[in-house]
Amino acid sequence: MVLAPSSLELIALRGGLGAVPGVRLAGVHAGIKARKRDLALIAFDAPQHCASVVTTNEIKAAPLVVSARHLAESATMQAIVCNSGCANACTGERGERDAIATARQSAALLGIAPAQVVVASTGVIGVALPVDRVQRGLERAVAHLDSGGKAALDAAEAIMTTDRVPKLAAYAFYHRGRKYVAGGIAKGSGMIAPNMATMLAFVATDYPLSRDALARLLAQSSDESFNMISVDGDMSTNDAVYAFAPAVSNGAEVPAACAHALRAVCLDLARAMVADGEGATKTLEVRVSEAQDVIQARSIARAVLNSNLVKTALYGEDPNWGRIIAAAGAARAGMDPGRWSLEVNGKAWVGRGGVELLSEVEAHRELELSNVAVELKLGLGEAEATGWGCDLSRDYVRINASYRT
Amino acid sequence: MVLAPSSLELIALRGGLGAVPGVRLAGVHAGIKARKRDLALIAFDAPQHCASVVTTNEIKAAPLVVSARHLAESATMQAIVCNSGCANACTGERGERDAIATARQSAALLGIAPAQVVVASTGVIGVALPVDRVQRGLERAVAHLDSGGKAALDAAEAIMTTDRVPKLAAYAFYHRGRKYVAGGIAKGSGMIAPNMATMLAFVATDYPLSRDALARLLAQSSDESFNMISVDGDMSTNDAVYAFAPAVSNGAEVPAACAHALRAVCLDLARAMVADGEGATKTLEVRVSEAQDVIQARSIARAVLNSNLVKTALYGEDPNWGRIIAAAGAARAGMDPGRWSLEVNGKAWVGRGGVELLSEVEAHRELELSNVAVELKLGLGEAEATGWGCDLSRDYVRINASYRT
Repeated sequence: MVLAPSSLELIALRGGLGAVPGVRLAGVHAGIKARKRDLALIAFDAPQHCASVVTTNEIKAAPLVVSARHLAESATMQAIVCNSGCANACTGERGERDAIATARQSAALLGIAPAQVVVASTGVIGVALPVDRVQRGLERAVAHLDSGGKAALDAAEAIMTTDRVPKLAAYAFYHRGRKYVAGGIAKGSGMIAPNMATMLAFVATDYPLSRDALARLLAQSSDESFNMISVDGDMSTNDAVYAFAPAVSNGAEVPAACAHALRAVCLDLARAMVADGEGATKTLEVRVSEAQDVIQARSIARAVLNSNLVKTALYGEDPNWGRIIAAAGAARAGMDPGRWSLEVNGKAWVGRGGVELLSEVEAHRELELSNVAVELKLGLGEAEATGWGCDLSRDYVRINASYRT
Repeated sequence: MVLAPSSLELIALRGGLGAVPGVRLAGVHAGIKARKRDLALIAFDAPQHCASVVTTNEIKAAPLVVSARHLAESATMQAIVCNSGCANACTGERGERDAIATARQSAALLGIAPAQVVVASTGVIGVALPVDRVQRGLERAVAHLDSGGKAALDAAEAIMTTDRVPKLAAYAFYHRGRKYVAGGIAKGSGMIAPNMATMLAFVATDYPLSRDALARLLAQSSDESFNMISVDGDMSTNDAVYAFAPAVSNGAEVPAACAHALRAVCLDLARAMVADGEGATKTLEVRVSEAQDVIQARSIARAVLNSNLVKTALYGEDPNWGRIIAAAGAARAGMDPGRWSLEVNGKAWVGRGGVELLSEVEAHRELELSNVAVELKLGLGEAEATGWGCDLSRDYVRINASYRT
């Protein structure tokens, strides 16, 4: 008899969302974009509980509004339809009608209720969804639905906009000797500024969970992953993360291994977005430690990651640590100017009171790496948080200045 | 007999701060920078009331801390000393000693009390001030003190960092048949991201005001000018605006003409910063109207001006209005998705519900102008606010990636 691995050990799998048993996917070219795949359909064999974390932008795209209504109306979900090439945002009443039509068409093809469909879109704002093309695309997608890595790759490609690579992540975990999987796909060119204005992620596990437990788990995992990657204030009208788990009436308890696996999936997808940031040449990890509490640590880490001056200095490999400290102070989260110290790639960089411990040449050498990690110790407590970002390059401007033209 | 102009008519003057009677200035090369002027000294013939608006960054540069102490200790001020090339920020106790020494030296040379000196610095963070060079520079500056436009230009140049042009503004106004002047100088490469991390402005009037009246006036004027230009979250450790007026015990009443003139000086200086923004090729005026209140209008205007996606679209002359609406919604200031409409350069661009009223070609033509004005009507009330910003170009990245190297 083979012993199951310890309950907290995770086994990285290929195939992303396609590695989760009971999930079938397809990614097709519906003609919203000129040539590339632009429509993903994801179907669950059994009814799922679903939880979501969506943009706090007051201008919400039609698919977000329609999906929120579906989540309120229906206890379980059974499909996701997501297009790229058109955000269906700022499209008024017509936008809602189009999102509803998309859900209806998918439901009819799959033999489920329209309210069991999550709809999502990403692309240009202010342009109407070509529903007839979506309809024909859906018919093709249903015929291609499949489990496994190839189908997941097609679906992950179909939701890409300026992404250079499809984003998939999956982990196996064990609970009471049984193997389960958590997996997902995502899109987002770095969140450094979602060009087509969206990050989307769809994650699932085959471990059955109650709706409340799933919602708590997703909120926690998102706070440590999607909410800790660099967002430059250009919060999208379409940002959304949806999580799925087989619907059971009990399932209020989340095994540690399951939480661990779902968190790992979210972290992998979030870091993949940062690494694929528009024009990014380097990634930056910012750990804020010795904080009073996690809220303080997160707030300061985000402020550093969002600073254009920190990002451009990183791009130029300029060891201008003052920009990091100025960005941290600008967060107004309770920094003490006399107590902080700074490390880079594990080496002491600036000691208390602004004493430089690395020469400019030494610090520059650290910034030449393609993955740079800084740790800002606040000297105030024991809490900590980590976030991820990337540099701001001339290519970022090129990409975003000429997106539609 | 020549009639004085009506009390609200302003007469634009040359000479900036040097146009204000009783103000003498000098700008010299002290050797903090390699070649350019880097030390400004400004002396008032009579004791002045002084009010300030300073950065809310928790990491404040030493000169800000020392100046705040002086303003608390002394009822009147009589000089400003400001260097460029070194921010004297994150320099610990030594930084404070150096700022105090600078004030002492200036006071000794001018025959006033050290606490009557405002000190300010702008430049690299984390580098100590070369006080011996500052001392020798001050001796030269005192010898060059002069009123008028040439001296003001020298001083305005001496506080520049990446600024391409010195910034001066002055207006004459009339009150009860007597002529007064309000004038100022400033530095700041756009606030789009103060490269050397600072905006500074020194403004003065020869109309005598109480300290409270001056403080209220400066707060109001700053809220409508310096606080309404694009700040990208990279709030400086050194940002400061100081205002001066002859010290009187009464003077609690501010004549409308005086308020009007000081506001005009602040607006001119603020707009000059935006036009001189690092790498800027265009300026953007954002008016938010039909708002519930001024706070909502300002908050949304700032969010649009600070959006990297709006800035890059402007640079690329891409009429991607969805980015403006998404940035406005992200402010979370209470927008109603169904009621807004948008104008560009006075022409209706997008009507309620996202209906495009200008073709893409027509809208593109509007964005080709070097000064673009958009008006976002919220459809909620009657308040409004206006702010100013600039585009985000490849040159911005070039300038900020290689600032110290």
